Amino acid sequence: MIKSKGYAAKDGNSPLEYWEFERRELGSNDVLIDILYSGICHSDIHQVHDEWGGTQYPIVPGHEIVGRISAVGSAVTKFKKGDLAGVGCMVASCGECDNCKSDQQQFCSEKKTVWTYNSTDVMHDHSCTYGGYSDNIVADADFVLHVPESLDIKKVAPLLCAGITTYSPLKRWNISKGHKVGVLGLGGLGHMAVKIAVAMGAEVTMISHSPRKKADAALLGAQKFLNTHESSELKEFSAYFDFIIDTVSAPHDYNLYLALLKTKGVYICVGIPAAPMEINGRSIMGGNKILTASSIGGIQETQDMLDFCAEHNILPETELIDIDYVNEAYQRVLDSDVKYRFVIDMASLNK
Amino acid sequence: MIKSKGYAAKDGNSPLEYWEFERRELGSNDVLIDILYSGICHSDIHQVHDEWGGTQYPIVPGHEIVGRISAVGSAVTKFKKGDLAGVGCMVASCGECDNCKSDQQQFCSEKKTVWTYNSTDVMHDHSCTYGGYSDNIVADADFVLHVPESLDIKKVAPLLCAGITTYSPLKRWNISKGHKVGVLGLGGLGHMAVKIAVAMGAEVTMISHSPRKKADAALLGAQKFLNTHESSELKEFSAYFDFIIDTVSAPHDYNLYLALLKTKGVYICVGIPAAPMEINGRSIMGGNKILTASSIGGIQETQDMLDFCAEHNILPETELIDIDYVNEAYQRVLDSDVKYRFVIDMASLNK
Repeated sequence: MIKSKGYAAKDGNSPLEYWEFERRELGSNDVLIDILYSGICHSDIHQVHDEWGGTQYPIVPGHEIVGRISAVGSAVTKFKKGDLAGVGCMVASCGECDNCKSDQQQFCSEKKTVWTYNSTDVMHDHSCTYGGYSDNIVADADFVLHVPESLDIKKVAPLLCAGITTYSPLKRWNISKGHKVGVLGLGGLGHMAVKIAVAMGAEVTMISHSPRKKADAALLGAQKFLNTHESSELKEFSAYFDFIIDTVSAPHDYNLYLALLKTKGVYICVGIPAAPMEINGRSIMGGNKILTASSIGGIQETQDMLDFCAEHNILPETELIDIDYVNEAYQRVLDSDVKYRFVIDMASLNK
Repeated sequence: MIKSKGYAAKDGNSPLEYWEFERRELGSNDVLIDILYSGICHSDIHQVHDEWGGTQYPIVPGHEIVGRISAVGSAVTKFKKGDLAGVGCMVASCGECDNCKSDQQQFCSEKKTVWTYNSTDVMHDHSCTYGGYSDNIVADADFVLHVPESLDIKKVAPLLCAGITTYSPLKRWNISKGHKVGVLGLGGLGHMAVKIAVAMGAEVTMISHSPRKKADAALLGAQKFLNTHESSELKEFSAYFDFIIDTVSAPHDYNLYLALLKTKGVYICVGIPAAPMEINGRSIMGGNKILTASSIGGIQETQDMLDFCAEHNILPETELIDIDYVNEAYQRVLDSDVKYRFVIDMASLNK
């Protein structure tokens, strides 16, 4: 077994604290990664607090992982020791079903997707997986990404979840020059959606009820700003957008925003509320509109995203913290008090 | 003015009865059509009873109209006297906006779509339009369709609404051989969806909670039947369909049916309930699914549909009635007691 140390929560009401544990031995198709940086995703907090049900404690969160390969299994040709590598939300899947074969491992038809943490590893030893708030990780090389050396390694981790979550639908819907894209919500996902859509050539409008976000959105590259508290602006942007990317997980009025789409316009949810979305039939029938959602992305698609970000030098805006600050960081995520993603410097584990 | 006679409702509580009225003079780009057959659409009943609000009385319903050209305006080259012609849901629009120019006149950006009945004719004399339960109609030739002579004229009328409503999304989403298509609801729209999807080469499954509809669905060409009251069948068809066409206007559980779609599957509503649709975010995020709706179709698209139906000899199943039976027919539509569309023989006006 491989010794690991990291931060874990022992139950849903306790803070994260130092914990030593073990990971499975390196298999022939596995790599061992020394973790350098790990991003904090809002879904880490949901699972630590067992808000989605079924959390297995102790839980070591973290699915935005960047590090260097320190060992490779005998059958691994894709990586060598010293390579920069990334791990996102998944570490295994059946590999045989239609979804796995078409790079949609997150939808494995056999329901054998193994998540990076808080998941039973049904493809290996049936142990619980532990995430990136730790000093190392063992993973199947097929689920590990090459991280381009040209990207600032301190900032790259959030691309593994926030980046792919926004890149995947933008790419799938062929967003490009000439398209008018609205982005709803300016947080970890929203700020990546702005940067990526701008890089794809679209005209990007930040849609917000907070006029104080206008300057920040402009800094990220958004060309326009729609203050939804101004009815004159809502009217001006009526039937304006080809696409809207909705990154908001809190309940909100979808019909208000669907009215901002052109005929055949596409509304893409990458954040979803727990309660059902109430969609007026006329909001989509008038204009043959399309409502869809998107969940992370496949492994090859994640590699494509990293390469795209390297080509366009796209990185998240991050605040680098030591691991002992993680509980305060969680509270600040809940207070929307971060621009726009925390990254943990894992070297701080040894301080 | 041109003299007309037909059946009208004087208010929302009265039966339809004989009424004589006038239509505008023939303009240079207009045609006059002697109406031979007129279909009964459920939306006629909604508007006669003012269930959508704003009905202008007296109302002469009918937007599934087939007849012969009896006169043409001086500038008309598309038709000559004696031609078989059809009129659907629209008779005019601005013609200048992006939607009108891209054959989506039903979504005219200037909100100048003139509906075939119960609509103010903002493109002509601002009179109220009267529909097809009558002996003639004047319409802009650009909104009049050529009806192929090869089709059985007694049955063709419902293609002008039920036909285009189902053809348009099936065509737009490129439904073809290899696709698995589910059809929800076996009525005027549903039975056309089955026939058209089968003609496009798809494998079609009727989805119903009434096993007694199985034989009827098979007669229409559906290869499979899913009884939604059988949990084993729901499981068998889980993640099965590429497309589902939902023709049901009554409230129902969308999440149940969204689970029947494959990854990236498309759910197309052509009937919508009055109350908001409650969509669980996970129902569309799991599998990156697409929910959309579709409203009738453009004029050129309607012509394409008629030509497609002529090529494949697709006709609705109809029950031919005299005009004095119309009020009983309405009750039978409300009771779902028609297979699957009533067509009024307008010659009966002279009986």
